[in-house]
Amino acid sequence: MFLVTILGSSAAMPTPTRNQTSQIITIENTRFLVDCGDGTFVQILRNGVSTKNLKYIFISHLHTDHFTGLMAFLVCLGMQSRHSPLYIYAPADLEQYINLHLKISQTTLDYEIIFQALPEGKSEVFLETAHFSVQNLPLEHRIKPCNGFLFTKKNPKRTILAEKLPKNLLPKYYIDLQAGIDVKNENDEILFSVEDYTILLPECKYAYCSDTKYNTELLPLIQNVDVLYHEATFLHKDAQKANNTYHSTALEAAQMAQQANAKQLLLGHFSIRYHDSKPFLEEAKSIFPNTYLAEDGVSFEIQLGEREKE
Amino acid sequence: MFLVTILGSSAAMPTPTRNQTSQIITIENTRFLVDCGDGTFVQILRNGVSTKNLKYIFISHLHTDHFTGLMAFLVCLGMQSRHSPLYIYAPADLEQYINLHLKISQTTLDYEIIFQALPEGKSEVFLETAHFSVQNLPLEHRIKPCNGFLFTKKNPKRTILAEKLPKNLLPKYYIDLQAGIDVKNENDEILFSVEDYTILLPECKYAYCSDTKYNTELLPLIQNVDVLYHEATFLHKDAQKANNTYHSTALEAAQMAQQANAKQLLLGHFSIRYHDSKPFLEEAKSIFPNTYLAEDGVSFEIQLGEREKE
Repeated sequence: MFLVTILGSSAAMPTPTRNQTSQIITIENTRFLVDCGDGTFVQILRNGVSTKNLKYIFISHLHTDHFTGLMAFLVCLGMQSRHSPLYIYAPADLEQYINLHLKISQTTLDYEIIFQALPEGKSEVFLETAHFSVQNLPLEHRIKPCNGFLFTKKNPKRTILAEKLPKNLLPKYYIDLQAGIDVKNENDEILFSVEDYTILLPECKYAYCSDTKYNTELLPLIQNVDVLYHEATFLHKDAQKANNTYHSTALEAAQMAQQANAKQLLLGHFSIRYHDSKPFLEEAKSIFPNTYLAEDGVSFEIQLGEREKE
Repeated sequence: MFLVTILGSSAAMPTPTRNQTSQIITIENTRFLVDCGDGTFVQILRNGVSTKNLKYIFISHLHTDHFTGLMAFLVCLGMQSRHSPLYIYAPADLEQYINLHLKISQTTLDYEIIFQALPEGKSEVFLETAHFSVQNLPLEHRIKPCNGFLFTKKNPKRTILAEKLPKNLLPKYYIDLQAGIDVKNENDEILFSVEDYTILLPECKYAYCSDTKYNTELLPLIQNVDVLYHEATFLHKDAQKANNTYHSTALEAAQMAQQANAKQLLLGHFSIRYHDSKPFLEEAKSIFPNTYLAEDGVSFEIQLGEREKE
């Protein structure tokens, strides 16, 4: 399973139906919260999202609309009887803010917060397990640092082409083949090779890019992603405003998707100056047809793009 | 006009239909925000509350659920093109938190914030105009200071008993009588006295008491209020838990209303441990029939209690 659940899709000013930015990413049994605008915990409750497997919180940057719901979130997690540690990856300045909040509110959490400052000025895989990796993506925004995140769901086990193998093969050989070990006889001759009897499904990738101006330097880092979430604060008729405020237009987001050879584009972070979100979709689709709009409460499955599947 | 609009009525843990504590008080053309839980600004938008005349924010205490929506609120006000100053009355520790948030988020607001620490350990009228006054009410909660607020809507003008006066009386004499000045002839003899030709409607009072344990020391300060908002985190079967956590039960809130000779009781701050809010109403009504439950998005008019009207 590889899911993104939208908890908030507005730009800095929310609306009655769009909260400030927040997403839950689910990779198998692990959940990540990405950004945490005002009222994010209520969105968790409204959309029936379990926080049981939530292990990581990533904060892209310290503009108010991307982190202001964090303290309510942390305290409410505590009230849900959480005891397992929570890892927060964020700009370094956030740590003192968390500590000051806990101090003045005289709050002691029953779980440990492990705060990690995100890498600055460079992109690196800052979190990796056998099942996934996460790499920060330096974005071009008014405030520094500002990071996007590239989530990679790995396929730690090879897929066995069972129909090619004899039915009575010992289970241990299946396990070896899944793990990439050839099955050999006692003379060390290969009976069933990993190459012939298994395939490795490609990794599946989701890139979160918000907030950022149109920035082609990002392209090598997000090349061939299966789904690109890209902010689209403005329509292209307001490209100058987008540029001045270090935001993007829907068309620019689509250009990024196109140039990155992304398989799907998900737009979000819509400004309230436009009363309708359809024009964002139309504008992006004009050059990148496989585009969708983020809507609060909606989950999107991150699947391998068509080209890889074939 | 004297209105209380409920933006949040849950205890610390919100629900899909109850946000953390927040209320808007409207006295004629002036609005006050009282407490500001997570997602309060979205509640403002959802309920179509104008922030145009919002001049004051009061924070009762620094438990997370009573102030964590404040920074999003302040920043969103700025995005609504606010330029008039905003007065924040709160525990002193909040000021450094506001300043740290503005610093790390690199936010400059286009309006001035005038921060005032609330009186500590005593009750006094800390804000007064010709139209209203606000007095802090020291509450008994785990964190100190914790203040409730007594709002008094004054009647600065006397009401003229027009039917008793001659129809051709000069307008200036009406204005004098409204202002409490007798109408005299040139020999300084009273023609129409303030006492005989006007009445002064009584002041109208709303007391906000959250969070607090049952505390009869509060009674002299809230005597004869027209509406008492009192927290009712627990039902009385859990009175021991209420006492241990410095909260109240619905029955205790009703006892306070009864002993304060309040005309109406409004209950809020309900714990999620009870899945239904009706028992709170039933419990309080068993001894104080004129009780209502706070519900998010609902406005209650603060009117003179029946006894005063008669």
